[in-house]
Amino acid sequence: MIRIGIVGGTGYTGVELLRLLARHPHAELAVITSRKEAGTRVADMFPSLRGHVDLAFSETGGASLERCDVVFFATPHGVAMNDARRLLDAGARIIDLAADFRLQDLAEWKKWYQLDHAAPDLVRASVYGLPEVNRDAIRAARVVGNPGCYATAVQLGLLPLVASEAVDVGHLIADAKSGVSGAGRKAELNLTFSEASDNFAAYNVAGHRHVPEIRESLERVAGRPIGLTFVPHLAPMIRGIHATLYARITRATDFQALYETRYAAEPFVDVLPPGRHPDTRSVRAANTCRIAVHRPHGGDTLVVLSVIDNLVKGAAGQAIQNMNIMFGLDETAGLGQVPVLP
Amino acid sequence: MIRIGIVGGTGYTGVELLRLLARHPHAELAVITSRKEAGTRVADMFPSLRGHVDLAFSETGGASLERCDVVFFATPHGVAMNDARRLLDAGARIIDLAADFRLQDLAEWKKWYQLDHAAPDLVRASVYGLPEVNRDAIRAARVVGNPGCYATAVQLGLLPLVASEAVDVGHLIADAKSGVSGAGRKAELNLTFSEASDNFAAYNVAGHRHVPEIRESLERVAGRPIGLTFVPHLAPMIRGIHATLYARITRATDFQALYETRYAAEPFVDVLPPGRHPDTRSVRAANTCRIAVHRPHGGDTLVVLSVIDNLVKGAAGQAIQNMNIMFGLDETAGLGQVPVLP
Amino acid sequence: MIRIGIVGGTGYTGVELLRLLARHPHAELAVITSRKEAGTRVADMFPSLRGHVDLAFSETGGASLERCDVVFFATPHGVAMNDARRLLDAGARIIDLAADFRLQDLAEWKKWYQLDHAAPDLVRASVYGLPEVNRDAIRAARVVGNPGCYATAVQLGLLPLVASEAVDVGHLIADAKSGVSGAGRKAELNLTFSEASDNFAAYNVAGHRHVPEIRESLERVAGRPIGLTFVPHLAPMIRGIHATLYARITRATDFQALYETRYAAEPFVDVLPPGRHPDTRSVRAANTCRIAVHRPHGGDTLVVLSVIDNLVKGAAGQAIQNMNIMFGLDETAGLGQVPVLP
Amino acid sequence: MIRIGIVGGTGYTGVELLRLLARHPHAELAVITSRKEAGTRVADMFPSLRGHVDLAFSETGGASLERCDVVFFATPHGVAMNDARRLLDAGARIIDLAADFRLQDLAEWKKWYQLDHAAPDLVRASVYGLPEVNRDAIRAARVVGNPGCYATAVQLGLLPLVASEAVDVGHLIADAKSGVSGAGRKAELNLTFSEASDNFAAYNVAGHRHVPEIRESLERVAGRPIGLTFVPHLAPMIRGIHATLYARITRATDFQALYETRYAAEPFVDVLPPGRHPDTRSVRAANTCRIAVHRPHGGDTLVVLSVIDNLVKGAAGQAIQNMNIMFGLDETAGLGQVPVLP
Repeated sequence: MIRIGIVGGTGYTGVELLRLLARHPHAELAVITSRKEAGTRVADMFPSLRGHVDLAFSETGGASLERCDVVFFATPHGVAMNDARRLLDAGARIIDLAADFRLQDLAEWKKWYQLDHAAPDLVRASVYGLPEVNRDAIRAARVVGNPGCYATAVQLGLLPLVASEAVDVGHLIADAKSGVSGAGRKAELNLTFSEASDNFAAYNVAGHRHVPEIRESLERVAGRPIGLTFVPHLAPMIRGIHATLYARITRATDFQALYETRYAAEPFVDVLPPGRHPDTRSVRAANTCRIAVHRPHGGDTLVVLSVIDNLVKGAAGQAIQNMNIMFGLDETAGLGQVPVLP
Repeated sequence: MIRIGIVGGTGYTGVELLRLLARHPHAELAVITSRKEAGTRVADMFPSLRGHVDLAFSETGGASLERCDVVFFATPHGVAMNDARRLLDAGARIIDLAADFRLQDLAEWKKWYQLDHAAPDLVRASVYGLPEVNRDAIRAARVVGNPGCYATAVQLGLLPLVASEAVDVGHLIADAKSGVSGAGRKAELNLTFSEASDNFAAYNVAGHRHVPEIRESLERVAGRPIGLTFVPHLAPMIRGIHATLYARITRATDFQALYETRYAAEPFVDVLPPGRHPDTRSVRAANTCRIAVHRPHGGDTLVVLSVIDNLVKGAAGQAIQNMNIMFGLDETAGLGQVPVLP
Repeated sequence: MIRIGIVGGTGYTGVELLRLLARHPHAELAVITSRKEAGTRVADMFPSLRGHVDLAFSETGGASLERCDVVFFATPHGVAMNDARRLLDAGARIIDLAADFRLQDLAEWKKWYQLDHAAPDLVRASVYGLPEVNRDAIRAARVVGNPGCYATAVQLGLLPLVASEAVDVGHLIADAKSGVSGAGRKAELNLTFSEASDNFAAYNVAGHRHVPEIRESLERVAGRPIGLTFVPHLAPMIRGIHATLYARITRATDFQALYETRYAAEPFVDVLPPGRHPDTRSVRAANTCRIAVHRPHGGDTLVVLSVIDNLVKGAAGQAIQNMNIMFGLDETAGLGQVPVLP
Repeated sequence: MIRIGIVGGTGYTGVELLRLLARHPHAELAVITSRKEAGTRVADMFPSLRGHVDLAFSETGGASLERCDVVFFATPHGVAMNDARRLLDAGARIIDLAADFRLQDLAEWKKWYQLDHAAPDLVRASVYGLPEVNRDAIRAARVVGNPGCYATAVQLGLLPLVASEAVDVGHLIADAKSGVSGAGRKAELNLTFSEASDNFAAYNVAGHRHVPEIRESLERVAGRPIGLTFVPHLAPMIRGIHATLYARITRATDFQALYETRYAAEPFVDVLPPGRHPDTRSVRAANTCRIAVHRPHGGDTLVVLSVIDNLVKGAAGQAIQNMNIMFGLDETAGLGQVPVLP
């Protein structure tokens, strides 16, 4: 059994890790820390875990994390970069669900996260944890930066395109809609039910942290600069991301075949038959990305629809997928959850 | 007092007409018909109207409609075109909230509505009821085709652009999200709470009926062909449309000023200050369209956000606005509702 | 025009007062204060009010409140009791939407609100603002304590019973469900969309602040002690209270007639015909309470269903109703809003 | 592997059976029938099952059901009673998720389901499938009538009480709230998002089908007549039942201990510590019932809160629990799903 540590398990990515790991056949949850909740039993905080998780939160500074095989950081940005070296030195491997290891360009990182990075050398050694792109590098990685939720949905939707030279990659558009849990487990006014329910709005049109991450990763694939207009929206639902992607076609291509071929071997990417519209609930609570490809009226604008559960394929599930790869397990181990519908 | 008739008042546009007209200072609801519900008291069907509407639904064929000054058709497509002439001959004017008088191009109409049009001459004489474009023509019109809800949100968001020659109007993109009431008061599986709640999906990516209407109207303004990719989505909310519009900038322009100038005199279009993101609830239950204009990173893609309440500015409210214009009333009469928040 | 002041207008009862007063024919909003938001334009904070409210929040200490005819306190508990005397001395009348003037029993008040009352003499002179019980006293009152939202729904549902001697008033049960806005405009974790949506739970089963208020008011009507078990629940909706009330029948009575007679002259209480089930949306955004009376299987348990909009008849609407009574206006002035459906 | 047949798998209990059985370690889905959808691939109808269920719906009359070890009926009421004998004769055992085998009193059954029962002898031989009451009988049963969702939540909440003689069982009250999926996968107007969202109402106060079932089962336990007032409500959520139960205390008892003792050995009933309020999401998508016991103010009214997921412990999960018992498997096999939160 792989010994698991979780740092900061009181947010939604943390509780989702617990939900998934509680049933993982090869993982054993050894320690979970929380600065604020040390001493609280996990199942007292999250009654949904009663009978499934029999641990209490422990202090963040304790030594027990160092005895873990892998430590997940389900913390705010800027935590993992400070703790990583100590844990690595103790022999643990690290999967950061925050942004500390998502960007190689540290100037860009500083601009978006307003911090000097504490471990630039670890960034260079880290691997961006999108298995559909970096599977081999993840296998060997000591530190994995788990992608952002929007970043996952958008990249999986655009990957076949940017590798294809069939569209204008200088003017991609991603119109993305996220459920409220994407903002985290936070007491913020705009996230309250009274504000967010029966309502719909865009936000951060001027710029969003996931854009540099998407661009850096896609440019590595494309081998050329990517232009991306990204508009996120807050949708009145708990989970789910729906990315509607637009690209100008520059060369006649069988796009359906392009996608089917690209993802034929991927266990967690499902390309729908032509004409379908994936809905977010078709992946609810599961580690799946579903994609549909449309070319309205046979015109020169391609429309790609990509959906994930932001907490699973967009966070905790993908982190476990990365863990499975890192430790040589079946990549799908513990990730066979059937989406919950309705 | 203007004597009002409503044909088919059992759908959402019908009950919304009733809600608004019940408080209109210059209108008197004289008759409301329903094939299925003849004899039922309106307030028995819609308890929200108890104490406000003291009428019963009457047979559709009755003569009383002919004694009305104006008849609203809140019916499915294909009804108004058959009844219109009789009512016009009797002296009534007509506002059709369905699609019978939205398109001048009858071949296009037939393609989307699968019917031969029953009154082509009336179509030619009718006016497309978007006051922000056709105010003068509406004033004199005997028959007004009230715009579709998506069509209203998208057109108000694009009008200043297509008139400006500052963007590539051959490749406009409208990513639109609608609340479920936009689909009407219908017992359909995909509209049930269990299916539509906590869920998000696109639909009709291959083509939507509102596209020809948007294109025909915008082309009249632009004086040249418009290319539009339109992707509608079903959002888990009751009311509201949020259109996110994308255009490639071709000429340096102060877009904020362009919009503010264009709509300075419009009572129901509110251009927000720079940097804002309108939310649909800010227009909930009111006849307002709010618009924000963004140019992310100063790049060459313009992003316009446009929100309306699909049942008010997208249907019943706009119909009353048209009525006010047709009868020489203050255009805002009976339409002063403050949006309901939260 | 009556000059209106609002203290603390940044919560939901405050913005709802603004929504309703903006269209009141005899009221003029003169000043609105906020400690935190002084200087902010009201319509910048609440875009729904753009075009309707052209004021900025002012400092709380300013003199302008004293020039008002009536001051509404839309503040947390414990504010009005400190400011009231100064305003009364200046000639203003006061309507407190918080709890400072709801209870005559100050020991009970202290127990629930954890404060020593700052103005016991004003409490004695104040009137509990439930017009259906205290209309005459309200007319003459200088200080009105506006009832709580649960308290309004439960009392209107029980009033005819406790006056009737037809049920066991020692063992009444009120199972109440409230929309999330009832908790106020607060950044609290349990009120977030991710926590409150697609979820249902009771809370405060051990005791709730509205119970002493309900009991004190009903006992005044009944002339004898009332026993009430009250269980509030948080329902995943924005607005609305649904109280399901249970009483053991002790004397054969025509309960339908009892209710219809009791409320025959009340403009804002609507007793539905037998067999109906009022839904909360039938009063959404309106100052109405709808009630239905059931006696399942002709047994000895009576079931009364009572619904209100917690922000209107449960707060701001009732406050304006009280104002109308206090100032000799038509009691329904400015309160003719038709419920918003769907 | 147990060979499973499902009749009528296109409703929510059907798709939930599929979700759970797809991961069951000892079950193999052999055949699923649907009159309307014969030939359709299951995963085409429910994209959430893509990659998990590789069957098509087959004709209802086919012989393949007869080769199953157990057949689940996820059909409307009145189907299983006609097909049962043929399948029993072929050696299959039967679990009916509809109501055909829930009531021994066939006069009562006819009254509520408006049908003459087609198999009275099978009713007499059948077992009511509430494992917490009938575990031993279920083990030996050939036909199990799976309880209704409300019936499960209410009975598990009341069982310790009716066995205790500590409360007045002649005047029990169950105020129950259900998510919309409890009404099934049906295109009905009142179930649409536009009607059911942001709304709350009681229904069927005059009488509900689950009452005779609850009463018959509880009376068997209590050995005396039960009086129950049951008021169901439709809550704007997809899944979940919250039953708030009221009983008049007649004898001093440690109710917390009573419940803890009663359910100490039950794998799927979780009695919360004193003072807690279970929320429906704490059992979302899992086969758990959580219960809390309150005695407000130490008075003589006991309040019990009981929550389940209507589609799992209230339907498909409980059916699989029954199957596990019938076939001598670990009762929890395939039912270890961790509730999905948020």
